[in-house]
Amino acid sequence: MTETNRRMILAQRPTGMVDDTIVTMEEAPVPEPGDGEYVVKVSHVSIDPTIRTWMDDAPGYLPPIGIGEVVRSGGLGTVVASRNDEFPVGTTVFGMLGWQDYALVDGTPGTGNVVPDGMDPTAVLSVFGVTGMTAYFGLLDVGEPKEGDVVVVSGAAGATGSVVGQIAKLKGAGKVVGIAGGPEKCRWIVEELGFDEAIDYKAGDVGEALSAACPEGIDVYFDNVGGEILDAVLERISIGARVVLCGAISAYNDRGSAYRLKNSFMLIMRRAKMQGFLILDYLDRFPEAQGEMFGWVLDGKVKHAVHVVEGLERTPEALNLLFTGGNTGKVIVAL
Amino acid sequence: MTETNRRMILAQRPTGMVDDTIVTMEEAPVPEPGDGEYVVKVSHVSIDPTIRTWMDDAPGYLPPIGIGEVVRSGGLGTVVASRNDEFPVGTTVFGMLGWQDYALVDGTPGTGNVVPDGMDPTAVLSVFGVTGMTAYFGLLDVGEPKEGDVVVVSGAAGATGSVVGQIAKLKGAGKVVGIAGGPEKCRWIVEELGFDEAIDYKAGDVGEALSAACPEGIDVYFDNVGGEILDAVLERISIGARVVLCGAISAYNDRGSAYRLKNSFMLIMRRAKMQGFLILDYLDRFPEAQGEMFGWVLDGKVKHAVHVVEGLERTPEALNLLFTGGNTGKVIVAL
Repeated sequence: MTETNRRMILAQRPTGMVDDTIVTMEEAPVPEPGDGEYVVKVSHVSIDPTIRTWMDDAPGYLPPIGIGEVVRSGGLGTVVASRNDEFPVGTTVFGMLGWQDYALVDGTPGTGNVVPDGMDPTAVLSVFGVTGMTAYFGLLDVGEPKEGDVVVVSGAAGATGSVVGQIAKLKGAGKVVGIAGGPEKCRWIVEELGFDEAIDYKAGDVGEALSAACPEGIDVYFDNVGGEILDAVLERISIGARVVLCGAISAYNDRGSAYRLKNSFMLIMRRAKMQGFLILDYLDRFPEAQGEMFGWVLDGKVKHAVHVVEGLERTPEALNLLFTGGNTGKVIVAL
Repeated sequence: MTETNRRMILAQRPTGMVDDTIVTMEEAPVPEPGDGEYVVKVSHVSIDPTIRTWMDDAPGYLPPIGIGEVVRSGGLGTVVASRNDEFPVGTTVFGMLGWQDYALVDGTPGTGNVVPDGMDPTAVLSVFGVTGMTAYFGLLDVGEPKEGDVVVVSGAAGATGSVVGQIAKLKGAGKVVGIAGGPEKCRWIVEELGFDEAIDYKAGDVGEALSAACPEGIDVYFDNVGGEILDAVLERISIGARVVLCGAISAYNDRGSAYRLKNSFMLIMRRAKMQGFLILDYLDRFPEAQGEMFGWVLDGKVKHAVHVVEGLERTPEALNLLFTGGNTGKVIVAL
């Protein structure tokens, strides 16, 4: 191969949003596979809020991305060179490929997964991928919704939140309320996705809107944002409520002065639980969820939106969209 | 009856500690039982942190105590007049008798429970009562300790915390660390109760002490205090940790400026849960716990201390002890 491999490198630790002083592009030779290894030409990169947390030198569920290393992320592509019989040239593969044109995969279990022919690559990275699995297990396993429950989701027009609300309806929630930013997102989740109500957090006081939408309290809250919205929900949880901590986007760009929670006291008053989870703990249960999700998507019961950004060089910009709320649905960079 | 009934009345809502402007004594006639009712002469009053929360006009698991009403609390006494065949004169009864000499009990299910003859009244109000049940179900049902777990308890020399640590050891915890105030309490929980280590929160940085005592992280935390100590623990929880929110003594006297939690973010990073509970939800399971606890106490495996204050007029002072840390073990007012 005579092409070069463009790699988006973490040059220094960010203190806020990511720009071209934080992530720089460098060129390197396309890697050659060693014994058992293979090389994937990346076609689509998955953009997820958690990538921002990996850029900090702080405790996390994975080690921080090292300075000088390629930014870690999920992605999808085609095997172009292989010394691994399970992943021959031409295979479509999903894995942690990173922000680069070519990824060297070591071939050990879990490092790459074959994608069946004919699958829409954007669906692989969204509803059938980590994003959809996060919605599925976070809501059903941690949130434990019961028939008739009032379910509230923040980041409701995002990749995970939009799926959470639809699954909640399918599983018999009495009322599903989404919190999103701006009238267009609010319209989308109600009219297209079937949420019962939407709260535009940019349009007024979220607490008052929650009181109006959920006069009898909130049974399940799927939290993608943390901060003041989490506090507003905690003030209104019902007895035995489950608060699912999926993410805290509001804090990712500024951990030091992170929002301090006022209403954790309500967990005692309402005998409620607040629980974080990590989708990587559910890897062995993905097939059951993917089976159910596949049926729902095929029947048009779960819809998903994709926000595609073109060009590897725009990966930092694509990441920032998640924090400015510039996206509806899953953000993917197409190479 | 020609005696009068001294009643400790909530005269106004407190903003901090309780004094004689908040709770005043008034005299009233001893009540007469109506049909199905009975009157108990109170001998012992249970002093619990939760009483302070009932004095606030704030959402809680029970309605606030009304201004002009007798302060609500558990207690024990003897039936002195009865129009209820299940509770004849002479019966020893436990129930929500309040801070007063004579309590009128309406006789409906749950309002009073017969205490078997020969039971130590202080044990009824502590290890076999709500305090001990709180320790038992909070630790085992919410905390779900596993063999070998590192268990940390705050308020460890208090009525509930001291029992939590002992049950944790009996159930196979690998290490039990208690957080208490002052060298004498720390000595007591280690030397008398068998905690593995004690941290004196008055003697230095709790976070550093926790890091030293629990280098591999904290699996179960039974929280009686909230505030900065809860934050220090959250910073050090292990993957899959369970944080049991039993109380938040540090906040009860000043809800408005309640401590704001900094490290709830760690629940995501460590896929941990933080859960509040209310012992009243476990009433129907008390017998199973009391059976096991009875055996432990009889065998000397669970020890309990009682801090007795004499005189109804000293109930406010007894309540304040819980917040100044002036007690070791269960605080009871003997009339």
